[in-house]
Amino acid sequence: MSKPIDFYFDFSSPYGYFASTCIDELAAKYGRTVKWHPVLLGAIFKTTGAAPLPTVPLKGEYSLHDFERTARFYGIHYRKPAEFPLSTQAAARAMLWIRQHDGEEKAVAFAKAVYHAYFVDGLRIDRPEVLAQIAFDLGIDAARMIEGSNDPAIKDEFKEQVDAAMKRGVFGSPFIIVDHESFWGFDRFAQLEALLKDGKI
Amino acid sequence: MSKPIDFYFDFSSPYGYFASTCIDELAAKYGRTVKWHPVLLGAIFKTTGAAPLPTVPLKGEYSLHDFERTARFYGIHYRKPAEFPLSTQAAARAMLWIRQHDGEEKAVAFAKAVYHAYFVDGLRIDRPEVLAQIAFDLGIDAARMIEGSNDPAIKDEFKEQVDAAMKRGVFGSPFIIVDHESFWGFDRFAQLEALLKDGKI
Repeated sequence: MSKPIDFYFDFSSPYGYFASTCIDELAAKYGRTVKWHPVLLGAIFKTTGAAPLPTVPLKGEYSLHDFERTARFYGIHYRKPAEFPLSTQAAARAMLWIRQHDGEEKAVAFAKAVYHAYFVDGLRIDRPEVLAQIAFDLGIDAARMIEGSNDPAIKDEFKEQVDAAMKRGVFGSPFIIVDHESFWGFDRFAQLEALLKDGKI
Repeated sequence: MSKPIDFYFDFSSPYGYFASTCIDELAAKYGRTVKWHPVLLGAIFKTTGAAPLPTVPLKGEYSLHDFERTARFYGIHYRKPAEFPLSTQAAARAMLWIRQHDGEEKAVAFAKAVYHAYFVDGLRIDRPEVLAQIAFDLGIDAARMIEGSNDPAIKDEFKEQVDAAMKRGVFGSPFIIVDHESFWGFDRFAQLEALLKDGKI
């Protein structure tokens, strides 16, 4: 049995969102599963010295256009959120809490719903009430989730997971690790698929 | 008659080299021509705050691997030069001098030969004697080229061209501008081709 594909993403990353819309299907096509890992680009950028794309001169403006064009090119629903980027700690911690209490499948369903809420419906996914509504719609105990995701144990665990991701070389979103190969960016999915298909690249 | 495709590149950029191996053919397929513009990422990064890829924590190591993997994936000859990155001002100025004295075709042939010398043969393209040999092999007056590309007028012109590129939003290599659309990166060539084919994207 092959190991799962590790999929690292930040909930505020458009390219991470694009990846989230198809990575499970891509993996399944080659008999593989995906392990979803929310990370915090803000914390990672402190190590790499990078800045959020929209704040970078020249590159920022280009990126906003590229998000829309790339979404169109691949037929992915996307609308630039009014508030972008925003803090994604609460959403990430909530996902971790759900993984512990409702299992892997619900956690991934929550992640997909959060991405959709942000990049299609334009909702403020940094707000507890928005995350609670998403959880509620998935049959999760929203009140307990909000309380539980503020627990110091969850906070520590998330911090450890982000540190562990960086130790594996994760510096952006999406970032995929599979069979000792790392791929950064939705634009590396053709190469990722070649590896899944041929077992080498 | 359609306007040429503007192709901006730095001679020390592997992704720029990958683009250089196929952009003329891609353009010709859709009845278009390419105008080649050498730029200086060092100067541009002062504006954007970016750093040369190999120096960035985590991303640097990944990039070195990605250069090789991407070259393999597209069947492009590539060998990591021992000295990387290196200064590309001399090569860029030489190309400008050749454009003025030997015409567009020779200038592009020189650019392709410089890229090949660096990323296939591993030569020190920051050295005048290497650039002179490349020019000589193309039937260019190498001694005059070396002297001429140190002329203050060529230096000023190159500086103006880099500034003009930044004014158009160029912040990386390769960077392609065509019909009011900008594309950064060899990994946007599928989208570039869609635009050339359909007239929109």
